[in-house]
Amino acid sequence: MKRFVDLADCEREQVLSLLELARRLERGGEPRALAGKILGLLFFNPSLRTLASSQAAMARLGGSSFVIHPGQGSWQLETRDHAVMDGAAAEHVREGIPALAAYCDALGIRAFAAGKHLQSDLAEVTFNAMASLTDKPLINLESAVNHPCQALADWKTMDDLGVPRGGRFVLSWAWHPRALPLAVPAAAVHMAAFRGMEVVVLRPEGFALPPAIMERARRAAAAAGGSLRETASRDEALEGADVLYVKEWGATDCYGDAAADARLRAALTDWCVRAGWFAHAAPECRLMHCLPVRRNTAIADEVLDSPRSVVQRQAYNRLPAQMAVLYQLLRD
Amino acid sequence: MKRFVDLADCEREQVLSLLELARRLERGGEPRALAGKILGLLFFNPSLRTLASSQAAMARLGGSSFVIHPGQGSWQLETRDHAVMDGAAAEHVREGIPALAAYCDALGIRAFAAGKHLQSDLAEVTFNAMASLTDKPLINLESAVNHPCQALADWKTMDDLGVPRGGRFVLSWAWHPRALPLAVPAAAVHMAAFRGMEVVVLRPEGFALPPAIMERARRAAAAAGGSLRETASRDEALEGADVLYVKEWGATDCYGDAAADARLRAALTDWCVRAGWFAHAAPECRLMHCLPVRRNTAIADEVLDSPRSVVQRQAYNRLPAQMAVLYQLLRD
Amino acid sequence: MKRFVDLADCEREQVLSLLELARRLERGGEPRALAGKILGLLFFNPSLRTLASSQAAMARLGGSSFVIHPGQGSWQLETRDHAVMDGAAAEHVREGIPALAAYCDALGIRAFAAGKHLQSDLAEVTFNAMASLTDKPLINLESAVNHPCQALADWKTMDDLGVPRGGRFVLSWAWHPRALPLAVPAAAVHMAAFRGMEVVVLRPEGFALPPAIMERARRAAAAAGGSLRETASRDEALEGADVLYVKEWGATDCYGDAAADARLRAALTDWCVRAGWFAHAAPECRLMHCLPVRRNTAIADEVLDSPRSVVQRQAYNRLPAQMAVLYQLLRD
Repeated sequence: MKRFVDLADCEREQVLSLLELARRLERGGEPRALAGKILGLLFFNPSLRTLASSQAAMARLGGSSFVIHPGQGSWQLETRDHAVMDGAAAEHVREGIPALAAYCDALGIRAFAAGKHLQSDLAEVTFNAMASLTDKPLINLESAVNHPCQALADWKTMDDLGVPRGGRFVLSWAWHPRALPLAVPAAAVHMAAFRGMEVVVLRPEGFALPPAIMERARRAAAAAGGSLRETASRDEALEGADVLYVKEWGATDCYGDAAADARLRAALTDWCVRAGWFAHAAPECRLMHCLPVRRNTAIADEVLDSPRSVVQRQAYNRLPAQMAVLYQLLRD
Repeated sequence: MKRFVDLADCEREQVLSLLELARRLERGGEPRALAGKILGLLFFNPSLRTLASSQAAMARLGGSSFVIHPGQGSWQLETRDHAVMDGAAAEHVREGIPALAAYCDALGIRAFAAGKHLQSDLAEVTFNAMASLTDKPLINLESAVNHPCQALADWKTMDDLGVPRGGRFVLSWAWHPRALPLAVPAAAVHMAAFRGMEVVVLRPEGFALPPAIMERARRAAAAAGGSLRETASRDEALEGADVLYVKEWGATDCYGDAAADARLRAALTDWCVRAGWFAHAAPECRLMHCLPVRRNTAIADEVLDSPRSVVQRQAYNRLPAQMAVLYQLLRD
Repeated sequence: MKRFVDLADCEREQVLSLLELARRLERGGEPRALAGKILGLLFFNPSLRTLASSQAAMARLGGSSFVIHPGQGSWQLETRDHAVMDGAAAEHVREGIPALAAYCDALGIRAFAAGKHLQSDLAEVTFNAMASLTDKPLINLESAVNHPCQALADWKTMDDLGVPRGGRFVLSWAWHPRALPLAVPAAAVHMAAFRGMEVVVLRPEGFALPPAIMERARRAAAAAGGSLRETASRDEALEGADVLYVKEWGATDCYGDAAADARLRAALTDWCVRAGWFAHAAPECRLMHCLPVRRNTAIADEVLDSPRSVVQRQAYNRLPAQMAVLYQLLRD
């Protein structure tokens, strides 16, 4: 494995092997596996778990890391091809990324969706352009419509907790003050389908996931014996659910139009997950969320603080997942 | 020792033992003591010494660290319980702190006083709420009314310089353009009293330290054979002083009222420490300050650049003090 | 060697020996040479290559580092002597630098030119004042008119590529939206002259390098058998050039006067390097730039993306150059 950019690039056996590796590394025992190795981290956007767990993963395996935040202690970076650079950006990624790659053994990049043109974001135009600038091992730390490290940690979380492979996984939209990217919903539905689950996307009208994302998950479901459908009916979706995976995202019907999105979501503040949502779910139904989450707007305290919530297990699993990915990329 | 949150939690013997450990580690010889250990650092506020010395302490002992600054490369964090999070904060500390704690072996947190409600700050409501969210070894890197790492370094500094245990320690208020927190004055009077010194708090009217802080220091003085009193008379306070510890803080009479505080301090610009202040002090009287300090507003160049000033020794001692605390928390 | 502040402080043999060391360390083999050593990094200004390669260099040699950005997670620092500090800066470098130096084995400082008074910047008043505050090994990571780490990497780049010692090295001014410092042009002409090259400075009227910078380079040229001259004629300068080293800088005729500088450069947008510039250069003429560079304002895509461009080799060489400097300073 030379890159970890999209879980869909992995065969099922590769994912299972990564998860096995994550469980092994979690138990310790290889504190010098990556001695002398350096991870470069390039964050165009804020991060807490990814930023901390990536550094911790290298340290746990005896390696080290450095972090670059463009525009905060480092130059703003231009990503558009052929730009006439007379604005705020002092440097182009065509120079910046190969330079950073020269100083490390693997490079991790976070670059959220621009959120203007849906097709451009779905095609991962920006991330792919950056990825093409280096041959070094590369990790996608969240791109426009993907977040494979989160997906791997979520898969491990469900394994840890004994969530059945064929169980019902409901991805539900939740309210947020503004439009957020599609990266986690896209990664989560694909991951659950890839795991062989019965996946239901629950979302209000106007917030359907784009066909390209649904198709990709459907292919994974077909190969793994799972299924995928969508609905706007909360009761129908949550009936017998084993997992309620909550995420906020922007209206795909008016992608890039903040005013239209705001009008749509103004009527949807009841999409804040409360205890009552679980009335007809499986008794042990788990609440998942990748974090960060806004309390009492997306998910109520009563749910986040209940035993259903496994968000801390998900957050914890970012570390062994990151360790496994780094080990796989750097240990050869 | 599982936490280093307040020097008052330590028995006298524990403090003396930490100081002995700091002296031993200062001489080197344990470069792999914390190999494989990770310190997580969460800074809600700016830092120079604490930020650098904490990382350096881990490195000197063979460990490593990561740093999170909420709002700067990481999400803004909400600290209020039950908040409806529709503002700037994307995440609550109830999620953020356990996640960070999962990636490290010990967590250090800096969170200055909110400066609005004196009783809330005195009760360390925010810090304690965060501290309750993890069972990992925890270090207070400055909270609303405490700064135990600074206190430990200051104690060591006086030991290094042979300041007598029963000597006269004067904490003096100094001018600053605006109200600063009570953390260092509270920690300094307690530390000096705990060391058994004759402690005098010198401050203008309106700036008396809150009774709770005075009481806490008085209890330490009583146990250690020291004393504590306060005065607004510079001449009286400094007569025979062995140490003049300077610090800026806000008016406690109108805590949280910036306009009233500004009116009070407008008349106090002569509370800038000058050479003349030492006229009746002991000949070897030392000038101490935790830094950062504003030159020529809080302390004049002539004093900071004189041999009396031991502020660099204090800054230097942050490193062995931090090493001792981390060694104690992580070496088992 | 106790400091690496100015390449002009080195004898020719010392530079050759540093380059030899860089080549040796580049091949690996000393992964624990700086085990236990700590590099403190103080960046007053943005950085990508210097920030990442300094940390990577320590890690490659088994050491570690910490980073302080005044005003971003750390206090704003005052640099003016005798300032009455009632403004934004909470701390003076007179306190801050000795404190940081106490926590590390070597200190690197980046502090760009203030860009107000040419004589003050030429005299390195700010950097020298900071340098005088510590006896620790010190590295200049770019000061007002110097950038010795870049110069060393550039020298190695020309050696790597077989650029003849006596070849023609043209430093050309290029357009930028605003005045940039003289550090890299000053370091580059000195380095090329020191290497024994035929150095030509190509710049429009108003942008001549200051006499002090030219004199310094001329002395190096005289000692090394090279030469130095300047011209405003592109055709004349580039005839037979082996290297075109491009850099943007401010008008020296009206240094510190942003409006006058803007008027001068408004007519100079054709100083964007294009393929045609190389018409009469040597066939293998290389394009060099220290980066960051603005595409299509300073240098056109067609040049940066052509085989002439060796900017990535320069960026790459920052790492072995930094490793050599750190090894030399810390390995005794």
